[in-house]
Amino acid sequence: MPAPPDLKQLAVGSRVQDALLVVDVEQRDSARGPFTILTLGNCHGQLSTAPFWPEDQPRIAGIERGVVAQVIGEVGQYGGKRQLKVSSIRVLPRGAVDWHLLLPSVGDVAPYWETLDRWRGEIRGPRLRRTIDLFYGDAEFRRRYEECPASTAGHHAELGGLLKHTCEVAVIGRAIAKVCRADQDLVLAGVLLHDIGKLDAYRWPGAFGVTDDGALLGHVTLGMLMLDRRVGEEDPPPCTDQELTILLHLIASHHGRQEFGAAVPPMTLEAEVLHFADNASAKTASMADALDDPDNFTGEALVSAKSLWQLDRRRAYRGSSDWGLGAGG
Amino acid sequence: MPAPPDLKQLAVGSRVQDALLVVDVEQRDSARGPFTILTLGNCHGQLSTAPFWPEDQPRIAGIERGVVAQVIGEVGQYGGKRQLKVSSIRVLPRGAVDWHLLLPSVGDVAPYWETLDRWRGEIRGPRLRRTIDLFYGDAEFRRRYEECPASTAGHHAELGGLLKHTCEVAVIGRAIAKVCRADQDLVLAGVLLHDIGKLDAYRWPGAFGVTDDGALLGHVTLGMLMLDRRVGEEDPPPCTDQELTILLHLIASHHGRQEFGAAVPPMTLEAEVLHFADNASAKTASMADALDDPDNFTGEALVSAKSLWQLDRRRAYRGSSDWGLGAGG
Amino acid sequence: MPAPPDLKQLAVGSRVQDALLVVDVEQRDSARGPFTILTLGNCHGQLSTAPFWPEDQPRIAGIERGVVAQVIGEVGQYGGKRQLKVSSIRVLPRGAVDWHLLLPSVGDVAPYWETLDRWRGEIRGPRLRRTIDLFYGDAEFRRRYEECPASTAGHHAELGGLLKHTCEVAVIGRAIAKVCRADQDLVLAGVLLHDIGKLDAYRWPGAFGVTDDGALLGHVTLGMLMLDRRVGEEDPPPCTDQELTILLHLIASHHGRQEFGAAVPPMTLEAEVLHFADNASAKTASMADALDDPDNFTGEALVSAKSLWQLDRRRAYRGSSDWGLGAGG
Amino acid sequence: MPAPPDLKQLAVGSRVQDALLVVDVEQRDSARGPFTILTLGNCHGQLSTAPFWPEDQPRIAGIERGVVAQVIGEVGQYGGKRQLKVSSIRVLPRGAVDWHLLLPSVGDVAPYWETLDRWRGEIRGPRLRRTIDLFYGDAEFRRRYEECPASTAGHHAELGGLLKHTCEVAVIGRAIAKVCRADQDLVLAGVLLHDIGKLDAYRWPGAFGVTDDGALLGHVTLGMLMLDRRVGEEDPPPCTDQELTILLHLIASHHGRQEFGAAVPPMTLEAEVLHFADNASAKTASMADALDDPDNFTGEALVSAKSLWQLDRRRAYRGSSDWGLGAGG
Amino acid sequence: MPAPPDLKQLAVGSRVQDALLVVDVEQRDSARGPFTILTLGNCHGQLSTAPFWPEDQPRIAGIERGVVAQVIGEVGQYGGKRQLKVSSIRVLPRGAVDWHLLLPSVGDVAPYWETLDRWRGEIRGPRLRRTIDLFYGDAEFRRRYEECPASTAGHHAELGGLLKHTCEVAVIGRAIAKVCRADQDLVLAGVLLHDIGKLDAYRWPGAFGVTDDGALLGHVTLGMLMLDRRVGEEDPPPCTDQELTILLHLIASHHGRQEFGAAVPPMTLEAEVLHFADNASAKTASMADALDDPDNFTGEALVSAKSLWQLDRRRAYRGSSDWGLGAGG
Amino acid sequence: MPAPPDLKQLAVGSRVQDALLVVDVEQRDSARGPFTILTLGNCHGQLSTAPFWPEDQPRIAGIERGVVAQVIGEVGQYGGKRQLKVSSIRVLPRGAVDWHLLLPSVGDVAPYWETLDRWRGEIRGPRLRRTIDLFYGDAEFRRRYEECPASTAGHHAELGGLLKHTCEVAVIGRAIAKVCRADQDLVLAGVLLHDIGKLDAYRWPGAFGVTDDGALLGHVTLGMLMLDRRVGEEDPPPCTDQELTILLHLIASHHGRQEFGAAVPPMTLEAEVLHFADNASAKTASMADALDDPDNFTGEALVSAKSLWQLDRRRAYRGSSDWGLGAGG
Repeated sequence: MPAPPDLKQLAVGSRVQDALLVVDVEQRDSARGPFTILTLGNCHGQLSTAPFWPEDQPRIAGIERGVVAQVIGEVGQYGGKRQLKVSSIRVLPRGAVDWHLLLPSVGDVAPYWETLDRWRGEIRGPRLRRTIDLFYGDAEFRRRYEECPASTAGHHAELGGLLKHTCEVAVIGRAIAKVCRADQDLVLAGVLLHDIGKLDAYRWPGAFGVTDDGALLGHVTLGMLMLDRRVGEEDPPPCTDQELTILLHLIASHHGRQEFGAAVPPMTLEAEVLHFADNASAKTASMADALDDPDNFTGEALVSAKSLWQLDRRRAYRGSSDWGLGAGG
Repeated sequence: MPAPPDLKQLAVGSRVQDALLVVDVEQRDSARGPFTILTLGNCHGQLSTAPFWPEDQPRIAGIERGVVAQVIGEVGQYGGKRQLKVSSIRVLPRGAVDWHLLLPSVGDVAPYWETLDRWRGEIRGPRLRRTIDLFYGDAEFRRRYEECPASTAGHHAELGGLLKHTCEVAVIGRAIAKVCRADQDLVLAGVLLHDIGKLDAYRWPGAFGVTDDGALLGHVTLGMLMLDRRVGEEDPPPCTDQELTILLHLIASHHGRQEFGAAVPPMTLEAEVLHFADNASAKTASMADALDDPDNFTGEALVSAKSLWQLDRRRAYRGSSDWGLGAGG
Repeated sequence: MPAPPDLKQLAVGSRVQDALLVVDVEQRDSARGPFTILTLGNCHGQLSTAPFWPEDQPRIAGIERGVVAQVIGEVGQYGGKRQLKVSSIRVLPRGAVDWHLLLPSVGDVAPYWETLDRWRGEIRGPRLRRTIDLFYGDAEFRRRYEECPASTAGHHAELGGLLKHTCEVAVIGRAIAKVCRADQDLVLAGVLLHDIGKLDAYRWPGAFGVTDDGALLGHVTLGMLMLDRRVGEEDPPPCTDQELTILLHLIASHHGRQEFGAAVPPMTLEAEVLHFADNASAKTASMADALDDPDNFTGEALVSAKSLWQLDRRRAYRGSSDWGLGAGG
Repeated sequence: MPAPPDLKQLAVGSRVQDALLVVDVEQRDSARGPFTILTLGNCHGQLSTAPFWPEDQPRIAGIERGVVAQVIGEVGQYGGKRQLKVSSIRVLPRGAVDWHLLLPSVGDVAPYWETLDRWRGEIRGPRLRRTIDLFYGDAEFRRRYEECPASTAGHHAELGGLLKHTCEVAVIGRAIAKVCRADQDLVLAGVLLHDIGKLDAYRWPGAFGVTDDGALLGHVTLGMLMLDRRVGEEDPPPCTDQELTILLHLIASHHGRQEFGAAVPPMTLEAEVLHFADNASAKTASMADALDDPDNFTGEALVSAKSLWQLDRRRAYRGSSDWGLGAGG
Repeated sequence: MPAPPDLKQLAVGSRVQDALLVVDVEQRDSARGPFTILTLGNCHGQLSTAPFWPEDQPRIAGIERGVVAQVIGEVGQYGGKRQLKVSSIRVLPRGAVDWHLLLPSVGDVAPYWETLDRWRGEIRGPRLRRTIDLFYGDAEFRRRYEECPASTAGHHAELGGLLKHTCEVAVIGRAIAKVCRADQDLVLAGVLLHDIGKLDAYRWPGAFGVTDDGALLGHVTLGMLMLDRRVGEEDPPPCTDQELTILLHLIASHHGRQEFGAAVPPMTLEAEVLHFADNASAKTASMADALDDPDNFTGEALVSAKSLWQLDRRRAYRGSSDWGLGAGG
Repeated sequence: MPAPPDLKQLAVGSRVQDALLVVDVEQRDSARGPFTILTLGNCHGQLSTAPFWPEDQPRIAGIERGVVAQVIGEVGQYGGKRQLKVSSIRVLPRGAVDWHLLLPSVGDVAPYWETLDRWRGEIRGPRLRRTIDLFYGDAEFRRRYEECPASTAGHHAELGGLLKHTCEVAVIGRAIAKVCRADQDLVLAGVLLHDIGKLDAYRWPGAFGVTDDGALLGHVTLGMLMLDRRVGEEDPPPCTDQELTILLHLIASHHGRQEFGAAVPPMTLEAEVLHFADNASAKTASMADALDDPDNFTGEALVSAKSLWQLDRRRAYRGSSDWGLGAGG
């Protein structure tokens, strides 16, 4: 299979003949009749199709959100924006294409594992290490964890995003723990456990979404239940009841305040560190994404054209300087 | 001069014969008549006196907040709490005693300078380095900066607290910048400049307080004015207008949101990093202080006796575990 | 043992010779020296003692919060308020007196059980009934549930308060469910399960308090963990995974909004009903208590003397009318 | 006149020849020119028409919001949604058709009256009964009250909705009053009076809307004025001044908090009961409506496709279980 | 009767022999026994007494809040504060002393009336003038209006304060109306009517307080009811229904937002003007009072010693400059 | 050059042959293809064009936001709204047309200057007058100040709007200062300085917009920097350091609260006056604009058709009465 085309960069006139994910199917009305526009995507990004008119409906029978299709077409332009004029589209059997070619991804996950596993190996308390290893020493857990996105449409919304985010929180959490003299091992444990509930709260093959359990219980309590159940399966238990409570508190409080979804606010130094590290990774990733997206800016403007929802309605500024560096200063 | 006694640990029956700072002078009424209680302090902590009754008033003439006094007395106990029974108290001339012996302090500031100066030396953009050096290359600025507290009664409220806090924000900021790929030099510049306004907003000899300028303008805008004035004094200017705006924005936005005192919210990646690093240093220091203070806990209780104002009315938990480490696990 | 005296009504001059709970031990300072005041209580209410002066300290050695003591004394008056002048106070062995004589209580719990058990018996879905019976069919659970208060210092803060509150929520929930056509059985299940976490979150022998687990995890998530663990112990499971999620959602969402401590907001009709029924029972109990407490009013005033914290800083009005009924209207 | 067709269920190809209410007239632009779409409704629901193009404008002259028209047409389909292709539409004289056939309605109001009148008849205080009867014993008031909707586009937005809502609040209010021992008669009086201002605040013949008085004064104060005026017309007055104030307070406070439109917060037990009963009826009706509306869900999904404004931006879950009932468990 | 002494300025050693208002009676405990302190006041201010010990109780029998007493005593000092050592205190018959000598007051009200009556006389619309004159042309209304305070403990809390505040709102409202071209007559009508409900909401003879009606209904709705009733008494009515609604809306909305107690937000230009004028008069009066009160500042400090509740927890700054004027600039 | 046509009133069929500003260029899609609509404006208002279809694109090459064009066309109608059918549109050279003919404007600015300069001339403190005159005595400052809008799309969004707003704030501020006895000269200084930062924060030739500095620093801190720099340029300085701080505080606090963009809340009486005067001018202008705009109302309705964002989501009421004046009252 050839390398997937970079949908974000494909020039007008380029030919496409590739397996693409149907990310969205949108019906709109017009005076000429109703039409359908597909949003197609792969690991590089997304591109919309030209309209399918009523007479084209048979050609897109069976095309729905989450399906993978073999698409033949050509990149055109309409109203200043690129679009894909599809000449043929055909549903592929489930599993015919590796999801990693169809969805955005953090790429090679090995460095993230290498970092986290190294630090995990340095945990000194045997009961803490044993409890963490119930998850991080389990191959099936690792297989799912390295695929899961960290959100469905916000920060780190990509395959492996959760693992990357976890690694970032670990880096930041260690720096904070160092200056405030928190227990590094316990902070790391919190980092590794805080988002495990997302494995039950999200689904990602096909298209990123929230499971019914995710909607009804939230990833915070799902993570607490997951830890509680797994520890409960072990005989003898890997840690004491008080220790389990300390770990559950790290998960319960990592959103910081109840109005942001914490079950309780942080009451230990390590929970406080975890909250700030988690927040810093999530929010700076959103800012970096917003600045990277040219659609947020008009022409040469340095300030974003509108306030951005992912930044809580702030505008962003992409101006920069080399501070005289280029001038050999 | 002998080493100042550790007021926090002094046992009942101990004799005191030392120079102490008059931190507070409080008048109260009682059925027996009005009485006065002094709070005395030094670099190790504070201790309250036994009451001075009306007949004792001549002995404390001239004793007011911020004065240094030679105190002779003995540690007694009253209602379960230690108190100092003063037999003699005499005002000392201003400057007779080094402030560092009278106020809480971070101790040796050299390591903080060493860290910050090393990183400062690595700034690559010449105009950025030059602008920063207007302050950090100035001996008088350094002399004041290494004394200033980071707050008057909250986090890092000690001599040198601002420098220590700056160093912590630098450590955390570098970690965040690394994972989100922000400009490390610009983040460091923001770290070094964000709180310079506190030099004008606080006063610390005698007792920590807020200046009139600090109350009327706030440390955020005072810092902006300080940077603007200092750059304006240079001819040619050390940086361009746009660069100055970028630096001013870092100061202006470091409180994150207007309701927390930011002039504008962060609009650049580096401003976002700075905000989260600043917040993490301040809030985890408050949590660590709260957990260290035995007055927040009753007896053997692991949960604090009351919700703590410095933690936004949260309670704190001081329980911990060695996770089996002691057991040779 | 004689019936415990009604501490709220005892006239000045009355003699007390009874076992009382030491609800609080408060140290205060005065010009004459430090003194101690005890708050003593039994099932009828509380009464404070006259001061114990330094010379009286040996008489109250060993008296601490939560202890039960045999007290001999006489009701006096001081500054317009009744106080107990204690001539003898002696610690009793733990367990010497039935807690029900020492703490406020809802009284006979049988009618509450009768009502709840009757409705529980009418649940039609066998898997729902079986799951509920894991708790309500368990003698040890019932023994603890009928003792537990519904809060430590707010609404239904009395032995059996949780059971009484549960019964009230059931009555109200059924009425709401009737008019909005919710599933009565599922609403009842939510009513019976929503506060089970309080068994782990509170402790009540001695004096009402919050456990470490209650502080670190909150009664909402403790209840979810309790249900999850109990169901997990059964083989085969009493209900399906989806059914367990629906029950967990009822517990998770019963506080209505995240800022009020809900893990997630209600997403089903039954969860919405439960939330409003729970709220109505708690808030109207607080209002009724506030109106019943003469200390909230001055003299003949109909409007409370101050805004009341338990009513979110509202004032209360105790005026009423017989609307002409007495006049034979 | 034949029974009005069920617009919500009418199959494609069905013929319509009925009197319908013009609920909305919407002008839109398209490349082919401007077009008009009508929303037509009757007691069963609503259906939109196919576009009227410029050449069709004469056919819809005089058609405006609130008019009743005799419509002939056929149900077609366009973009997956049903629409009415109108072949003839003709304005009918005002009053030609019973409003109850044209607007959504609660149906037979007799049972609601029966319930409320029965409980009203049990009010014991003669002055209370007399005051309530000024309204509920007045035929013209009853005629209007049994038509008025409880909101224009939210809960119980249907003819008779106010009466139905009143009945629901009565049922719930009695249950709450029972458990907190509030005065049942006074709670009922509050239930019967709390929303009378809606008679002046809303208009409903034609289409539901807010009157100028409703916008400028709000239904809370309109209700207070209505009670005050009506009582003022009686000589001798039916109740005392204090009693009138107690009733006015019930109306004034039924929204609970000032930010939700209460003039004052509830200060009596009966006002507190009324507030929670009112809220429970309104909010659970909204949840039930949201779950009943298939447009809120996509395909087989159990969680609503988007957050719903009428639920304060929550999602809803329509999953359910028979808990083994069908299996004969 | 001699002029009342200026209690705020009376020097230590001065003799008092005057009728004073008992503003407060406070019981406190001490080791020596319970004691009572009276706060006495007259039109110039207030002064506290020395303690009345148990043996003094017969001397203050019958002394309660709101009573007027003939007091003989001498100004002493205790703990740095002046206090009145009472040698004789005797209750005077109700009405023996003019309230204006006993309560703080705005002084001569004639200028306020002169201003308001002049502008009232310029109202051009006859129906508007007639409606306003129902109140402002009524001698009894004027007698009460010129006594009523504008609040019980906040801005303009003095006899005549409501009239003074009304006059201030008129001055400011006219300036705002001028620049935004609002209807001056209607703004004036709103100014004159907006606070009439305070006549029913407050009581002022004796001591300022809130009536039961004021607590249960609030001055906003009381004012609306007062206008509605008065207009309803006239036959023919002085204005049309729409005009009455416009006037009621001015009262209903003058607090601006529902969370600040408005029944509805301002929807007309005149209501908006009224709201801002009312707010400006109230808030700047509070600021001026705070700056005038030396108790808010310590020694020579220019910034207030603490944040002030009456300024929403702001500090105040009393620094000023003559900007070189004194220097003959 | 002929007088610019009144775009708001131009009848259908009118011919246009004028220089117009391209206020907006909007691309939309339709089934017939993409099309472009221009919004054209001049000093009287704005008018949209009929669509430019793909085949028309060459005719609008070079037409972008902020350009001035010579336009020939005729007013048509489409979907009930007027539109301009353009037959010819041609870009004019920058500067060919006076901006005052192209943008909304307050008209003649002389009266505003006359008022402000007169009051400025009455300032008594020489150092205050001198500091103000650094700006208001500077011709270049005046030239820019009399052009600048007071906002880009809110209140006073027109050329000269800032000057007009300043004049309004002065009128209102003087009235408030009079009743609360604030320093009139200092209030006027605050009025004149509070918005000077808008000169740096906004740009207005072409189309109103926010500069990068305006976005990154905000007009409040820009104004503080502007004052600080200008004063710093003078030798000797025109005022003392404390005086400069008092002036900077007026700018810093004029938004009243931090959540509304104030650097600090008002701490002086004059800052409080300024804040309320500024707010009253801005908010009543928005209300007056909303009431003047017929697009906010449907047909004869007196209440606005929807809640208006510029009024914080309130509705507006345009009903009025002559109160019998016309009837010869």
